[in-house]
Amino acid sequence: MNNSRYPSRLLESAVNEFARLPGIGRKTALRLALFVLKQEVDDVVRFTSAIRELREEIQHCKVCFNISDSEVCEICASPKRDRSLVCVVESIRDVMAIENTQQYTGIYHVLGGVISPMDGIGPDDLTIEPLVEKVKFGEVKEVIFALSTTMEGDTTNFFIYRKLAPHNIEMTTIARGVSIGDELEYADEVTLGRSLINRMPFEKSL
Amino acid sequence: MNNSRYPSRLLESAVNEFARLPGIGRKTALRLALFVLKQEVDDVVRFTSAIRELREEIQHCKVCFNISDSEVCEICASPKRDRSLVCVVESIRDVMAIENTQQYTGIYHVLGGVISPMDGIGPDDLTIEPLVEKVKFGEVKEVIFALSTTMEGDTTNFFIYRKLAPHNIEMTTIARGVSIGDELEYADEVTLGRSLINRMPFEKSL
Repeated sequence: MNNSRYPSRLLESAVNEFARLPGIGRKTALRLALFVLKQEVDDVVRFTSAIRELREEIQHCKVCFNISDSEVCEICASPKRDRSLVCVVESIRDVMAIENTQQYTGIYHVLGGVISPMDGIGPDDLTIEPLVEKVKFGEVKEVIFALSTTMEGDTTNFFIYRKLAPHNIEMTTIARGVSIGDELEYADEVTLGRSLINRMPFEKSL
Repeated sequence: MNNSRYPSRLLESAVNEFARLPGIGRKTALRLALFVLKQEVDDVVRFTSAIRELREEIQHCKVCFNISDSEVCEICASPKRDRSLVCVVESIRDVMAIENTQQYTGIYHVLGGVISPMDGIGPDDLTIEPLVEKVKFGEVKEVIFALSTTMEGDTTNFFIYRKLAPHNIEMTTIARGVSIGDELEYADEVTLGRSLINRMPFEKSL
């Protein structure tokens, strides 16, 4: 479809724009553009305004760097949250995933990625310094690492670990093991091996 | 992810809007919204403007009902096109598909769908009447049916066929058969059977 001639320049530029979205090819982009054509004008205006406002009005929480509608996000502003417990994550999606468990009562620190020299992302591109400041001058007692278990994630973990080591806080990492509901034979060897080494008292699993 | 709490109302409404697009679930919608957040403001404005302009400024060609940037589309306005040959299709996508073959020099007539009582689409919801008028008062010599071979497509074909029968024009339908490059054993029985019945002189296939 790359050489398609579009019957309209307006259609062509809408298709081009849709096709810039991740995971959207030109065929899907055309389908989306034709869908837009069938919608009421009001619906399309609501769609485009929501996206534009998202980009233009969103803020980053100045405490945890999560996205927010205000200077300080709801989580950081909540009196119910334990400010001595900070969970370090890569992105907003990780915050949402953890929030969905409804098991966590601490606050977060969103790094904005992991150290990845291949992608040109160094420590200074992440919010590591504000984390160190927070630990230095704040009320933090424990930092929980919840980054991906990739080489980049491990590098980042270790980098932050060394930065925080001089300060008198506890540092932990989330448990890795066989997923609940998964059958052992399908678990990968590294995970299964790790879950044997890190076995825990049976009573605690009840 | 349905019960997800979003860290921002702006994010939530952008996700809701993306999720209204066909084939986009809530997870993909979130991915798209987070992608938007990482884009430059200018890029996002260009994206939303292209979509809004598409919906607000697009016109339908008053001759063939294809979409167009002007009152009469490029195809209908072209002096190179044979106005005596009209290809009846369901949608704009079909026009684009046929145009891509670069084999067709006639004009089109876009019905806007097929008759489908189950979906509440009757003949009056389609551009059948203008087609009849075109045949009645125009220079049309041949109408080519190129609708889908579904029950609805066949119904629509037959409905139009009866409407046009009193007028002295040729009516044809595009050839159906085993796709070029397809192996016989994978062709469906109906298509294969039809392609045997409608066999053609070998010399014509050269």
